[in-house]
Order: sequence, then structure tokens, then C-alpha cells
Amino acid sequence: MKKQQSSFIAMASTLKMVFMLLFSIFTISPVSCYKGVHHPLDPLSPKELTLVQTIVKKSYNPSSNNSISFHYVGLDEPEKPTVLSWLSKPSTETLIPRRALVFTRVNEQTHEIIVDLSKRIIVSDEVYKGPGYPLLTADEQVAAIQLPLTYGPFIESAKKRELNVSYAVCSTFTVGWYGGAERTKRVVKVQCYYNKDTVNLYLRPIEGIQIVVDLDKMEIVEYSDTFKIPVPKADGTDYRFSEQKPPFGPRINGAAIMQTKGPGFEIDGHTIRWVNWEFHLAFDVRVGPIISLASIYDPEKHTYRSVLYRGHISELFVPYMDPTEEYYYKTFFDCGEFGFGQNAASLVPLADCPNNAVFMDGYYAAHDGSTVKVPNAFCIFERHAGDIMWRHTELGIPNRVITEARPEVSLVVRMVATIGNYDHIIDWEFKPSGSIKAQVGLSGVLEVKSTTFTNVDQINEEVYGTLLGDNTIGLNHDHFLTYRLDLDIDGVANSFVKQNLVTKHVNDEVSPRKSYWAVVSETAKTESEAKIRSGMAPSDLIIVNPNKKTKPGNHHGYRLIPGTATHPLLLEDDYPQIRGAFTKYNVWVTPYNKSEVWAGGKYVDQSQGQDTLAVWTLRDRKIENEDIVLWHVLGYHHSPCQEDFPVMPTLNAGFELRPTNFFERNPVLKVLPPKPVRWPNCTAKP
Amino acid sequence: MKKQQSSFIAMASTLKMVFMLLFSIFTISPVSCYKGVHHPLDPLSPKELTLVQTIVKKSYNPSSNNSISFHYVGLDEPEKPTVLSWLSKPSTETLIPRRALVFTRVNEQTHEIIVDLSKRIIVSDEVYKGPGYPLLTADEQVAAIQLPLTYGPFIESAKKRELNVSYAVCSTFTVGWYGGAERTKRVVKVQCYYNKDTVNLYLRPIEGIQIVVDLDKMEIVEYSDTFKIPVPKADGTDYRFSEQKPPFGPRINGAAIMQTKGPGFEIDGHTIRWVNWEFHLAFDVRVGPIISLASIYDPEKHTYRSVLYRGHISELFVPYMDPTEEYYYKTFFDCGEFGFGQNAASLVPLADCPNNAVFMDGYYAAHDGSTVKVPNAFCIFERHAGDIMWRHTELGIPNRVITEARPEVSLVVRMVATIGNYDHIIDWEFKPSGSIKAQVGLSGVLEVKSTTFTNVDQINEEVYGTLLGDNTIGLNHDHFLTYRLDLDIDGVANSFVKQNLVTKHVNDEVSPRKSYWAVVSETAKTESEAKIRSGMAPSDLIIVNPNKKTKPGNHHGYRLIPGTATHPLLLEDDYPQIRGAFTKYNVWVTPYNKSEVWAGGKYVDQSQGQDTLAVWTLRDRKIENEDIVLWHVLGYHHSPCQEDFPVMPTLNAGFELRPTNFFERNPVLKVLPPKPVRWPNCTAKP
Repeated sequence: MKKQQSSFIAMASTLKMVFMLLFSIFTISPVSCYKGVHHPLDPLSPKELTLVQTIVKKSYNPSSNNSISFHYVGLDEPEKPTVLSWLSKPSTETLIPRRALVFTRVNEQTHEIIVDLSKRIIVSDEVYKGPGYPLLTADEQVAAIQLPLTYGPFIESAKKRELNVSYAVCSTFTVGWYGGAERTKRVVKVQCYYNKDTVNLYLRPIEGIQIVVDLDKMEIVEYSDTFKIPVPKADGTDYRFSEQKPPFGPRINGAAIMQTKGPGFEIDGHTIRWVNWEFHLAFDVRVGPIISLASIYDPEKHTYRSVLYRGHISELFVPYMDPTEEYYYKTFFDCGEFGFGQNAASLVPLADCPNNAVFMDGYYAAHDGSTVKVPNAFCIFERHAGDIMWRHTELGIPNRVITEARPEVSLVVRMVATIGNYDHIIDWEFKPSGSIKAQVGLSGVLEVKSTTFTNVDQINEEVYGTLLGDNTIGLNHDHFLTYRLDLDIDGVANSFVKQNLVTKHVNDEVSPRKSYWAVVSETAKTESEAKIRSGMAPSDLIIVNPNKKTKPGNHHGYRLIPGTATHPLLLEDDYPQIRGAFTKYNVWVTPYNKSEVWAGGKYVDQSQGQDTLAVWTLRDRKIENEDIVLWHVLGYHHSPCQEDFPVMPTLNAGFELRPTNFFERNPVLKVLPPKPVRWPNCTAKP
Repeated sequence: MKKQQSSFIAMASTLKMVFMLLFSIFTISPVSCYKGVHHPLDPLSPKELTLVQTIVKKSYNPSSNNSISFHYVGLDEPEKPTVLSWLSKPSTETLIPRRALVFTRVNEQTHEIIVDLSKRIIVSDEVYKGPGYPLLTADEQVAAIQLPLTYGPFIESAKKRELNVSYAVCSTFTVGWYGGAERTKRVVKVQCYYNKDTVNLYLRPIEGIQIVVDLDKMEIVEYSDTFKIPVPKADGTDYRFSEQKPPFGPRINGAAIMQTKGPGFEIDGHTIRWVNWEFHLAFDVRVGPIISLASIYDPEKHTYRSVLYRGHISELFVPYMDPTEEYYYKTFFDCGEFGFGQNAASLVPLADCPNNAVFMDGYYAAHDGSTVKVPNAFCIFERHAGDIMWRHTELGIPNRVITEARPEVSLVVRMVATIGNYDHIIDWEFKPSGSIKAQVGLSGVLEVKSTTFTNVDQINEEVYGTLLGDNTIGLNHDHFLTYRLDLDIDGVANSFVKQNLVTKHVNDEVSPRKSYWAVVSETAKTESEAKIRSGMAPSDLIIVNPNKKTKPGNHHGYRLIPGTATHPLLLEDDYPQIRGAFTKYNVWVTPYNKSEVWAGGKYVDQSQGQDTLAVWTLRDRKIENEDIVLWHVLGYHHSPCQEDFPVMPTLNAGFELRPTNFFERNPVLKVLPPKPVRWPNCTAKP
């Protein structure tokens, strides 16, 4: 993994060099943060990660033969009040101790460790006995997928299929939980692919072979070869440009964003300031990008006002819809099992991000606790999409025409998490009008299975997907993205208000109308009143500050404009759905609780759904005028089509958080009209 | 109106000059169409509009005192087979006769006239006796709003309110239909506003006065002054930059799209070619932009393949939710009553459209039949939003990292229709991957009513909206946009398939799973089987060509990815909802019928819902393997908030038409990777 990453650094940085050279006027060197002191929410630095490794390894006395592996190393988030009070007057005297939250495996036991990096000591160390196991590390997966290649029975199976083992590439799959007592071992299933004449391994599965690997012992513990079916052919599966044959195209003219004044944002450590926004951006090995302390400047109140204390994707549940022996277990939790940060792709300048983007690296701890760098893990850029921020043309005043229009500009923070075959493009977009848009783009490669069928007409049984080509079924599946949105609208104490739109009957004699709709507001008192399936009843969902009002007396608020309503189709008592129960509703609200960060639980691998958002909310806690957290579940049901083959055009889903009586009026009313863009005083050479 | 438009021409064209000068390398001069002959779907040219005026006026013998007004003049669309066969081998010998469809009022009667422009004769002329009346003309509305200003009782009313009549600006509102026999007169209600110290008249209504104007007689026929209430104050209502006081901002850095190779599209008459798309763009006084004959090049079949024969917004239903005497009637049909094209705004370069945009004018017939030009009615530009077309990073092959990514580029066609207070930004977006995205952005000014309340705490009665400031209620309302999408997927004969996702129970002993979902396809045989409310049941909605299959045997298709599910909340038997019954479902499918273009009917003003999509489909016609039309209803329920005041930040809604087994594989797989953009060989001067 580290080797791969670093080999990639070379490639990427060459590209980056070119790009830097070309657009050097646009690059920014992050300036140091407050007096060189860490922001309390900064992710662990490479230095700190190394320190964690040292402290933990020391404590387990390396001279003995303890086997230690690091499955999660992240910032142990300080309590919110502590953070807020320090930020209110940062000083080097009153430093908040830097602490790390560490999940390790020591001699086949899971440890949950808190390390104090300032005192350089372990503050607490608890053994977790399950159910469930921590994040799989990249390194152990790399080790596991090597095992079959030297494993006699597998070599036999390959021979039986007339396949050359040297072209076999394997991949790991979490086993899930299907009732009964928990497995006592940390195991994964390993499926192999035939990588000859293509790099698109996922489209060439070698079927009929079941391999189970014990990750702690790092050995194959189960093996079976039950049936043979030809591997789909390689033709047309490779997505690399170098492998494409002419005619190329369609041909698209290139373009560049030209900012004569350079980018409008500044990066100060992990804090980003742009136009009227300020927020903190952190990298986490499990959830990827974390937006913190997003606040917006209020021109009337002459101050920044808090909106989002912490926002990130919490879990991604991807159940496949093939119940057969070879595929039933494919019900993945990509954040909790594989890690969005651990699988962050190094972004490619000009392809993943436009020419005006600025990049940031990410760091995480590898299996052995050493630091891995992900170059260009994030890009940050101003989006000039040609949209309109607001406009009006007035033709109603005789003999006059008035037109005022302002072009939209927004700031985008992007990371891409590639979990095996799928690429998830994670965007956070900030608008000067106060909106925050979160979007996920889905690209990459489908999960397919082999079949003997070459035409739909031959299909005489359920195939659980779409026939995409000769011998290739694209399997039906879902993607459920769960966002954790710890909104602090103008302060910590907030309420969740459902502004239900209700049909009213007109009974008076005066009105010729029979009906209209009115807003009937309902404040959710407890968690159970805040569980909502989108699309069931029309309602504006608003997080308000019940203690702050506008001049006319409306509560300051932000509204959730949800994504397309998608609901689980698995039975509620089916095992994967028990573990993914947090997808039952599209909206949940909980009181802030430091330990409730991961909707699928801390230990998701082989979990039994004992520690999910659905379970937490059974306590039905008070959420009125409290520090509350909004959870939003976005989903797609994905029944593949041929256009998704061999690599799929991006499919988008997202939601908007929009100010609603947060400002006294349109906060971008006074934005300057566009000036003709100043142009370098020479003309372009075609 | 014409005066206003032309006065605007000056302003706009000055701006355009500047822009042309600055970005002259990006401008395109449309080249002439096929041998100077009209494309059969070209909108009527200024010459043709003048010819229509001449022919119609002559036939009504102008020497007599016939009063003639023109309420709709548009292309009489030739039959589809005729169009397709001519286009298959265009020739100047086999010209399709150019015909105009004309709605006139002659001596207070509605005439529906077909004019043959080649033969210069009236082919048919039928009197329409109602119910319902044609589009209101801009000129008669301009005349109507002058009447009160010299009308004694109104001057009295103004005096009573201590208002200076010279600041009064009035506006017209259609009266709708509220049961009983139809009104025998073409009347509108006129409401006046106090335009002192602001141009934002809509935020200063003069309440308590009811004025009804007979448009044919052009006189006030009803007047009442029932109550007095102060006009909301002007402070903070003006949206013009010139009227803003510092501090300005937020400050945003400008940017320009730099295309060293110029735009990637060409405009040939009304035909636009870009990358792998070709389509025809027409301007219509009633519905605005019409996209025709959109087809995409298939690199494997080496030919263009038809997707969308004709697509446009058909109607926009905007019912307000205030049943009181002064407001109950506000239930507008913006296309059929006021006209999107008639109210097209001249787009402002750099503000409404980015610097790489190219503009097109629109033309329509005024009240007297003379030609009105709308300069810059459309803009066309390549969108470089920084999105990703497709990507994959492969970390699964030991000791290798493979990354391929392609930046997204799309082509946008934009028009803005400003119906009084609201601005509707209408975008059609074409993607190289085959997707067509339609989006509507909502901006402009809210419809408000005066109130004595200045704070929410005082409110002790229903106010039918949100208190936005002192004495100002933003009224609750809906926007229902109905798109007409005459898809011709690979040909004319298509079917509508619902791929329902259905939960299956697992009963075998083998699988540890209890459930999964499967696709159960259902082809709609008749119209009743194609009426769908979004969000009710998970289903992929696909228009397929049942006669064309991919190699694996999937039917060629395009899938509708609908916008957020929004459903009417008015009672079905309420009069506005009877007229707007076409909003009951989000999806409808009808067999192609030349006369079924406007979902609310031909004659919407004062209509009784006798001629809507809902009525047409009662015939429950066959739609399987027929030439079918897909109708999609997008909606927002709009409960205003203070940020919408005094002009609202754009709120978006839209949908996607996405190829689904239309291509054998991802059609943009072979797109060239981005090259470092060639830069003018000099550096920008900051």
C-alpha cells in the first residue's frame, strides 16, 4: 500500500509539476496556523502519527513477541465546549491537550486506546470483546490477496480452468453477519479475478471458488471449489486511454478558468477562508473529509455566525441483491470496514479537479502504525459553472427596463474514495448565499458475475442483475450514504422543526376557493419525532435556534433540502438490514454525543447491528433546544445498464442546507456586479 | 412593450459590444442553413411574422373597422413523418410548406387561423367560442395598467391613502375560473403598487382595491375600494446595485473561461452541433425555448441516433395559497396566460451567461401583429464546472497504481422568462455521455401582501405566508412545471417501461439472506398505466424502443431520473386544481397528437379545465410501441423565507434523461484525456 501510494506520488507529482508550472499564479502555500499551535480539530500530523506509533509500541514492550496492528488512528475529538472556548480566545497558555483515538489488535484482541500526545502517555486502554471488529487495514488486505497465488488448491483450481495463476489478482470482501453467534475470528472472503489483457479485473471474476482468510493468523482457513464457469472475456473492458483503439472521441475543446486576481480563498493550516465563509477541513482515515466550524459572515451583524460544527459522511451501506451462495454476503459498509480516507485516491490535476484547484495531502497510520501520505487527497477550487446567483428583469414599469443579475460562484472541496471497484466523488460546496451543498458522484467499475448467457432471450432463471455483454451480469445493488451533520445554528442549542404543509378546506361563504395549504409547524421533542422518510408528506425540515430570532420574529434556521427519496427494500429483519438499520429513515436527529459518530457503529466488520444510529435513537432522548445532530441518508437503487460498462459515467446525488430566516434578507444582495474580466494584455495563440 | 424591448436593445447591445470586443475570439456568426431554405421546425422569421400580419389583416378588410389583435403567432408544426422524410434527404424541390398557427381576436371573437406562407393564403379560420381565451398580449396589458392612473375613483382611493398617483404602477392578473358559467368577457384584475423610492414594486402593494379591466373594450368594468392598510415601506426593497449603500460584498474574484481553441459548438441557422450532439433550437412566444431533433452520434454505429424529437416546457401552474377575497384568484398559468417567450428577458453577458457564451435573438408577433425582437433571448455556452465525467483509480493490483479520469464538459442552452415578479431560468444541458438535463432556476421577487403585523408574536390569525419584515407577508404558493418530452428513442415507435424494484423473500435453505430486490418490468399498454406519482414506489422509468436491441438483447432506452417528488395539495375538485389537473401525476405518457402540446389547453385564460392533459388521457389510448410523448411535472411548494427578500437567491429543480442500454457501452470511454491547457504565451497581469 505505502509502496503503491509512493510510486503514485512520483507519477502524480510529475503531473503536478507540469500543472504548477503552467498555473503557478494560482497555487497557494498554506500559511502556518495560530502561532504554530494546532487547531484543536486538526487531524493528526505525520509527526503525531509517528508519536502514537512509538508510544503504543513501547507500551506493549516490543521485545516480547506481541503482534500489534493499527486499525484506526485519529484525533480524539475534544469536547465541544472546550473547543469553542479555546477558539473564542486562542492562546498558547491554555492549550487543549492533543489526544489520539487508537483501535489496535494486540494478540488477536481489539484494544481501544486513548493516547495523550502532550504527556506522551496512554490515558486509557480497553479491550473490546465484540461483536464486531475494527477497520481492515490496507496492508493486511494486500497480504491476504497474495495467499491464494501460492496456495496449492487454488493453483489446482486455476489449472482446472486453464488459467495462468500469474494473471490472477485477488480482492478482499468482508463477510458480514448472518445470524447465530458471532464468528470468533477476524476473517475475510477473498475472490480472485483474471487480469490478463486488461487492468479491469472486476469484470473478469473467477467464479466457483470460495476462499476465507484469517486476517490475524494471515492464512487461508476455508477453501472450496464447487463449480466452473468461463471467465468473461477481456475485450472492451480496459478503460485506460493507452489501450483504446481509434477512433477516439468524442472530441472536446479544453478550457481553463482564468482568474486574473488568483483564487479568492486562503488556506491557513487546515482552515479555509473564502468570500464570506470560514471552515476547517480535516482528513480522517475512516470517513475521509471532515468539515468543521463552518461559519458565514453576516454583513449586518458584522460577525461570523456558526452553521455547521462538524459535517462528514458517517457510513456508506452497499448491499448487493444476489442471495446465492457466492454473493449473498456482499453487503458492505465502506467507511467502517474499508475506510474512505484509507482508500482516498490521489486526485489528478485537470482531470479530477479544474486548473484553478489547490491540493492538500492526507495522512493516516498504516497497519504497523507508520505514516502513509496520500498526495493530493483533497482539492479545493472555485466553481464558475455559469449559473446565476440571483436576477430580476423588471418590464412592468412603463417605459423602463431594469435588469440586475449576479453570476454564481461557489467553493468546492473534493475528495475521491475508491473502495475497490467503485469511485465515490465527495464534494462539499459553499455558496455566498449561505447554502452548503453536499454531493456524491458515483463512478468506477460495476461489480459483475459470470454467466453462460450471451443474450437476454436465453435467460431462464433469475440472474439478479443486467446482462451487460457476453457472459457478464452487472449485479443489482444499493448505495446508502449517511451524512452526520452536527449543525450549530447561531449557537449550540438548536431544535428540529417540521414545517408540515397541510391542505386546508375553505368553508366560509366569502372565498370561491375550496382549498389551500398552510404551514403547520411541529417541533420534534424527542428522537422518535424526528425520524422521517422523505417523500411521504410535504414538509420543510428546519434546524432552528429557538433562542435567536430575526427582527420580524422568525427563528434563525437552516433548512434541509433532501436528495431524491430512497428507502431500503430489504426486509427489516434481514441480517444486512439489521446492521444497516440506520438507513430506514432519510432523516434522524440525535442529541450530540461524542461517542455517536459512526452510524453503523464503532466496530462494523461482522457487527450485529448492536451499535447503530437506529439503536441509539431507541432511547428516544430529548432533542428540543439541545445540542443536536442531524443525520441524512441519501440513496440510489442501482440496476446497472450497459453504459455503466466498462467504467460508469458519473451519477450524482446530493442535498442542500439552505439558510431559512437565518439572515434578515438576501445576504448576497450587495454583491458587486461582474466587471468585464481583466484579460492578460495579449491575445491567445490558437 | 416594443418600446421597452427596443429601449433595452440599446442597453443590452452596448453591453454586448463590450463583451464582443473583450472576447471576440469566442463569438460565432451563425452560418446559413440548408441552401438558404428554412429547416421545417425553424420558428417564424421576422419576415414571416410580417407576412402573417399582412395576410391576416388584408383578409379582414382593414377599410372596415374590424378590431384585430394577435394573441399567438407561431409555426404550425408540420406532421412528424413529413419533417423526418424531408430531413432524410433535404431538397429545394420538395419543400415543406411553411405554415403559421395564429390565434387572433376579431371583434371580440377568438379566431384560430392557419396561414400558408408559401401560398400567402389563409388555409383555415375557425371561431372558437370558449370556454377560455388565448394568451394575453404584452401591449394590452401595458394599456390596461395605465387605466387606473387616470380613473377618478382610483385617484380618490390614492388620495384617501395619501399616496401620490404618479408613483402608482399597476400590474395585470388573470382572473381564473371559479365555477358557474364562464365569464362572457375577456377581463383581467389589475392590482397597483406604490413605486416610490424603489423599483421593487411587488413589495409595495396598494391593498383593498379591486379593479377589473375588460381587455377587448380596454376599460375598467369593476371597481371597489373596501379597506385601507398601510403600504409596506420601501427601505431595503431595491435590488439595483446603484441603490445599495456600502459596505458592499461579499467580494468575489472574477474569472473567465479561456478556450484557446474557441467554442466547441457551431450554430447553423437554428441547428446547433456540439461534440457528439446535434439539435435544433427554436423560440416560441408561448413556451419559450423548444429543443427539437436532439440526436447523438454513436461511435460504434457511425451515425447520429434520435433521442428527443421535441422538448419544451408546456405549462407552469402557480397557485397561491391565500383564499381571501383579494387573493383567492391568484392561480396562474404562466405559459398559457402570459407566455414564456413573450416575457423572455434579454440576457446580460457575464451576469446571466459566462464569458464564453454565444447569444441568439428571439422574435414574436405583438398585439398588432408587428414583429418584436428580444435581443439575447438565448445563450449557449460550454459549461466547465469542474465536475468529473468518469474516473477510476485501481489500487488492487499489487505494486501498481492506475488512475484514469476525464473532466466533465457540457453544453447549456439558457433562456430566462420573467413573468412579473418571478424569473425562471430555463436550462437545457447536454452531456457527451448522452444525458440531457433540464433545470429550472427560480429567482426574482416574491408576491407579498401588506399586513399590520411587524412581529410574528402579534399574529393572531392566518396570514397565509411568512412575515418577512414590517408589514410584509410573503405568500405561500406552488410552482408546477410541466415538461413535454416527445422522445423518439432510435425511431418513432417507443414504449414506456416501468422497471419496478420489488422486494423478494428468500425461502430456500441455501441462502443465509432473507431478502433482496429484483427488477420486475412492466410495459404500460395504455395511458392509465403510465400515470405515476414520484416517490410512491421505487421504479426506473424508461422509454424504450421495443424494436431495437443491444447485442446482449436489452432494448434501447432512455431513463427519466425525476426531480424531487412534489404533489398538489389543493383538493382535486377545487377550481384551480381542475384547471391544473395535469399536475396530479409527475409522469404521464400519451400517444403523439399534434394538437396536444399545451398541458393546460389551447385557451387557458379563464379555462374550465376542459382541455388538459388530464382530460386527454381519460381516453386511455394505446401507448405501447407507438409514437409516444412523455410528460414530466416538476414542482416546488414555496413557503417563503426572509432570504427571498427583496430578491431571491436561485432555487433549482430539474431532472435527467439518461441513456439506458441505448449504447453498447460507456460512449465516452474513448474521450481524450485532458492535455495541459495551452495558454497564451504571456502571463496574466494581476
